[in-house]
Parts: sequence; C-alpha cells; structure tokens
Amino acid sequence: PSNKKLLVLPGDGIGPEVMREVRRVIDWMDRRRAVSFDIEEGLVGGSAIDAEGTPCSDATVAKAKAADAVLFGSVGGPKWDSLPFEQRPELGILRLRKDLGLFANLRPALVMDPLVEASSLKPEIVRGVDIMVVRESTGGVYFGEPRGVETLPDGKRRGFDTDVYHEDEIARVARVAFDLARKRRGKVTSVEKANVMQSGRLWRAVVGEVHKAEYADVELENMYADNCAMQLCSRPKQFDVILGNNLFGDVLSDLAAALTGSLGMLPSATLGAVDPTSGRRHALYEPIHGSAPDIAGKGIANPLAQILSFAMLLRWSFGMEEDAALLEQAVGKVLAGGLRTADIMQPGMARVGTSVMGEAVVREL
Amino acid sequence: PSNKKLLVLPGDGIGPEVMREVRRVIDWMDRRRAVSFDIEEGLVGGSAIDAEGTPCSDATVAKAKAADAVLFGSVGGPKWDSLPFEQRPELGILRLRKDLGLFANLRPALVMDPLVEASSLKPEIVRGVDIMVVRESTGGVYFGEPRGVETLPDGKRRGFDTDVYHEDEIARVARVAFDLARKRRGKVTSVEKANVMQSGRLWRAVVGEVHKAEYADVELENMYADNCAMQLCSRPKQFDVILGNNLFGDVLSDLAAALTGSLGMLPSATLGAVDPTSGRRHALYEPIHGSAPDIAGKGIANPLAQILSFAMLLRWSFGMEEDAALLEQAVGKVLAGGLRTADIMQPGMARVGTSVMGEAVVREL
Ligand SMILES: CC(C)[C@H](C(=O)O)[C@@H](O)C(=O)O
Ligand SMILES: CC(C)[C@H](C(=O)O)[C@@H](O)C(=O)O
Repeated sequence: PSNKKLLVLPGDGIGPEVMREVRRVIDWMDRRRAVSFDIEEGLVGGSAIDAEGTPCSDATVAKAKAADAVLFGSVGGPKWDSLPFEQRPELGILRLRKDLGLFANLRPALVMDPLVEASSLKPEIVRGVDIMVVRESTGGVYFGEPRGVETLPDGKRRGFDTDVYHEDEIARVARVAFDLARKRRGKVTSVEKANVMQSGRLWRAVVGEVHKAEYADVELENMYADNCAMQLCSRPKQFDVILGNNLFGDVLSDLAAALTGSLGMLPSATLGAVDPTSGRRHALYEPIHGSAPDIAGKGIANPLAQILSFAMLLRWSFGMEEDAALLEQAVGKVLAGGLRTADIMQPGMARVGTSVMGEAVVREL
Repeated sequence: PSNKKLLVLPGDGIGPEVMREVRRVIDWMDRRRAVSFDIEEGLVGGSAIDAEGTPCSDATVAKAKAADAVLFGSVGGPKWDSLPFEQRPELGILRLRKDLGLFANLRPALVMDPLVEASSLKPEIVRGVDIMVVRESTGGVYFGEPRGVETLPDGKRRGFDTDVYHEDEIARVARVAFDLARKRRGKVTSVEKANVMQSGRLWRAVVGEVHKAEYADVELENMYADNCAMQLCSRPKQFDVILGNNLFGDVLSDLAAALTGSLGMLPSATLGAVDPTSGRRHALYEPIHGSAPDIAGKGIANPLAQILSFAMLLRWSFGMEEDAALLEQAVGKVLAGGLRTADIMQPGMARVGTSVMGEAVVREL
C-alpha cells in the first residue's frame, strides 16, 4: 500500500477543468514510473456550499489532515457572491489554512524565458525575474480578534479588525524565508509598515533577531510595504525572497505574480510545521490564479499552474525531486514548442485549449 | 493685505532643495501676476526633532491651522531611523493629517506623453494612463486603538493594531472620490478586502449606499486590493478614480505612481472638510516622493513634483485655475524642450540639476 496519500479538492470555476489535466499526469506516473498515489477527492468552496451547506465541511478537514498533501484548485464565483460573510466560498481555503496550521504560503513569481513577452513590463525589466514571496498565512488581520461590524447607540455602524502577531508566529515564518534564501540567492526582503503599525514594529524587530541569531549569512533588508510595491513594479530583479504578513503578503504576491504576465503559469505551496513525532508536515498546493468564472466551462483555461502545483507537491511533500523536475521540464518543452493557451497567447504561437495543453505535457513526459 | 496665507514646511532630505525652486515660482508670481502670498515657514520631521525636540510642534500645528494651505516637502532620513516609534519624523505628517482633519489624500498618477519611456511598463500599456487615487488619510489602522506591543506573562511579545472605520468616515471620503469621478471619466473603483476583513465589508456596503443614493450617474466597481495591485500592473488604463482606505490607499497609490516611471513628477493633495461657517477647507500639498536622503544635498533632485504640488494648491485652495494651468503648461514645455533631471533621464535628452530645472520653469512662465 502506498504511503502517498493525496487529497484533491478541485473547487469551483476552472478548478475542475484544470485538475482534470493533473489527473492525466498522475495516470501517466502511475503507469510509467510505478508510483502509485492513494487519491481521495473532496468538495470545497461554492460547490461544497451547494452540496454540503458549508464551504469546507468537518469531513473535508479530517480528510485533509489524514492526507500527506492537499492539491487545491480554486474557489468562488458570482453564484455565491451575495452570500453572507460567514458563508463565502473563500472561507473554505481560510479554514484549511487555519485548521491544518499552514502558516507559510510560498508564492514564486518566475518569468520563464519563452514568456518574457507576456509581461506588461519591458522585457529588459522582467527577463530573469525569480522571486519567492513567503506570506504568513494563519495570522494577522485575517484571523485577529476582536473583529466585527457593530451598530452604535446612534444607529451608525463601525467596522473593525485586529491585526495581531505573536513573536513566535513571526519567527517561524521568518525561518522559512531565510531557509529558502539560503538555497536561492541569499537575500530576504522583509516587508511591513513599521513606521505606522505596532505589529509591523514587532515584525521588524523579531525578523531582525532571528536573522542575527540564526541566519547572519543571509542578507536581510527591511522595506516598507508601499515602497516594496513600487520597487516590484520598477526594479523587480532586485528581489530574491520577499517576506510579509498575511495581508501584505497577499497583495504583494499578487503583484509579483502579475508582473510575470503569466498568472496561469504560477503554482504555490502552503506549508505547516513539521510534526516532531511523525516528521510529517501538512501542505497544500494550489495555483495563484483564481476560479476565473468568466472562462469556466469553455475549455480554454491554462492548466499549467495546476500542473506545476502538482510538481511542487511532488518535490516538497513526497521528496520526488526527479519526477518534479521531469514534469517542470515537460512544461518548459511544451512552451518552447510554441503551444499557448489564450491567457499567454503571443503572435506566431499556436493557440490551444485546456486539454490539448494537458495532453501535450503528458506527451513530453 | 493678502488673504492667501501659505505655510511652507520643507522638511528633510531633498525637501528644502526642491522647495527653493517653488520659491522662485512664487517670486515670479509676486512680480508678474501681482498675486501676493503671505508666507510663513516652519519645521517638520527630522529637522523639527533636531531643533524643537518633536517632529511637529504645537506651534507648527497652530500655524498650519491658521494658514489657507500648507505646502509640505518630505520627511525622514537615516539620521532619525533608530529613534523610538513615538519620535519618528513620519509622525510629523501623520499629526498634520490628523489635527487638521485632512481625510482625503488625492494622489494622481499621470503619464505625461514626453515621459512614456520612463516607465518600466511597455509604452502601449502606460501611454495615456491618468489615475486619481483617493486615499482615506485620518482613519483605519494608522490611528485605530487599541494598538501596541505588549509583553505576555511568559515574556513573549505580541504586537497589535486596530483597523477601524466609522461609516461616516467612509461616506465622506467616498463622496470626494465620486465628485472627482464626475469631473473626470465617471468611474470609481473602490478597493478593500471585503472577503476577509470586517472593516472592508462595511467599506463596501457604505460606498455602495452613497453611490446608490447620491451618485447613481457614476460607475462604481468594487475590487479586492490584491486584484487591484495585479490590475494596476497589467492593465492600468482601466482605472479612473481608485478609492481605498488609509493602508490600501498608501500601497496602491505608490504602485500607481511607480508605474508612471516618473515619481519625481507627481504631486498630491490632502483635503479636509469644508468648514460650514468659514467656507474654508484645510489642505496640504506635497510631492509623492520621499526625502530621498541618498541624493539630498547634491543638487540633482527633481523639483517638478514639488512645483506641481504648488500648482495643485493654486487650483484647489486658492481657485487660481489660470495660474495653475500656466504653471503646469510651463512644466510640460520644459520637458518637451528636452530637459531632464537624473531620475527621468532618457537617451538624447539634456541632463540638468535641480536649480537649472527650476529656472527653466520660471523662464517658460
Ligand atoms: C480567497 C482569499 C480569501 C484569498 C486571500 O485573501 O488570502 C486569496 O486572495 C488568496 O490569496 O489566496
Ligand atoms: C511617511 C509615512 C507615514 C507615510 C504613510 O505611510 O502614510 C508615507 O508612506 C505616505 O504615503 O505619505
């Protein structure tokens, strides 16, 4: 019996379509590389609301906890947009992050050479960009209490959230960033608004302490979030690893992704702590892109971000470096061969749909 | 006696250098257009800390309140970087915003035709970009209570901030955005994280209510902050007015500014409420760029953002539309004539320093 327990959560919109292409890849691996996965499927997001009345049921959380890794699609769509706050599809992914303790969200923004022209930035500005955003993902303003919308005695409303970090939460995600930097180009840019926020002031202090005590060999730069947004846009090549809290990490990782011009290509991983007894680490893998309701069901979505998320999963959760690299190379070759989905289409290339792209990757394998 | 009372606060770094060029412009107006200003100067930021022990003294606040408009330079520098939180130069501008009730920070991101090439984005993406970011600037996480860094019983630290908005705070800044949109291209994009933040949920609700009740002729679009960062980078021309809270407004306005590629060109205005009895409205004008300590004192800073801030002041605080337009045209002609400071230098142009640029503007006038 295989110990590679995988939970697949396609979610909403284009999620199921692009996940189908991953299944092709998995089938190929089953047949050709004799790795067998023990795969479960589950519902999350809007489709879970429709079928189970909640964006992420207890059963799904239990399955996720029992799995070695979760492969996630994307959630949300107009159908569920008017639901009350507590019932939104997005709560599916938030609950998984929180309940599995997935505190480090890793979002690479990589400009692949054949796709340089897809960026809205000039080629000389983005060629070679290779940024890893490490976003804290179980704390901060996403979960801080108290929070709410209250009605004051005069009938007026007041909405409030708490952005809060414990020093241990900052230190553990900082270590993830520094560890990654050591395997990359040795630089971490830690982002906050220490000039106006108290949690930002603590963030800067703790990152500095961890750096001094454990990672003096890595270069640490502190940068205000507003300045980081500017610098990402004007000189993205200066960055190696960017470390930010849940909210800044959300905005800045999306910006970093956008400047590559190929959102449909970008995978991400969200990692939990290593369990000291089992040595296991919960992890969830998902594309950066959302559920794209506007193109869902048309068969034109780009499956590569989902496929590359699976490659990340192979590498990080199953230690299958060779298979991960094989899969990434296959994607590179398909692009070099000129196939493009609509989102990354360029003059002179061949436009294909979701399943032709998925088949092409399997063929290259 | 003139009723045009102006408080000039050059601040730190390049602030005093670029302000000197505005004084040339003011002198010219005094002489040629027979408008006389009643000008006071004051200290703010690091230079105020050095001379008065605080980044913005009560006396400076009093002068600002007595003035019809404040022309602000920029604050901060390495000299004051290690000061405790409560004594940082930045508190100078935060205090002025708060004490004068300057709740609407208007930050235009305009790509001027001669400077299209200065952008890191492709010319076809940025040519014609003309965005106005309206940032709430006296509320939210910048001022919300409780806030602090506390030490828990076990000796560990916890840092926290409160992001809070009252519905009236949201409604009044929304009105500023809708009013501006009416005079522009009729579209407001309101930005929040209503999917994860309660204050964001209230933000979206209140903006929607104001829109429905008072501005149904304007187009309103709601957008998540992370998506807005993406869209600014990939398709900036879709935006007219962007409305955001203090924190999102800070980050997104800097991003919008960066994509023009000419930060040294961008002015901003921060407006208070209209006083119902005097009909007066407190207002502060400042360049988007900071104090740029790395180039301070070298005579190479671009004075145009400070000069254009003065043009905004003429238009908004003194109703001197003609003079404002004259000044903006003079800047346009100087650029068309090929003069460039280092920050916007392009091949084939003539590189000049701060004072040559200032003189050239006066000559065009
Ligand atoms: C779906 C939503 C809650 C989420 C977030 O804000 O974290 C999304 O933007 C993301 O980045 O995964
Ligand atoms: C100086 C600092 C407090 C300020 C801010 O964050 O508001 C700056 O970034 C700005 O945008 O004016």
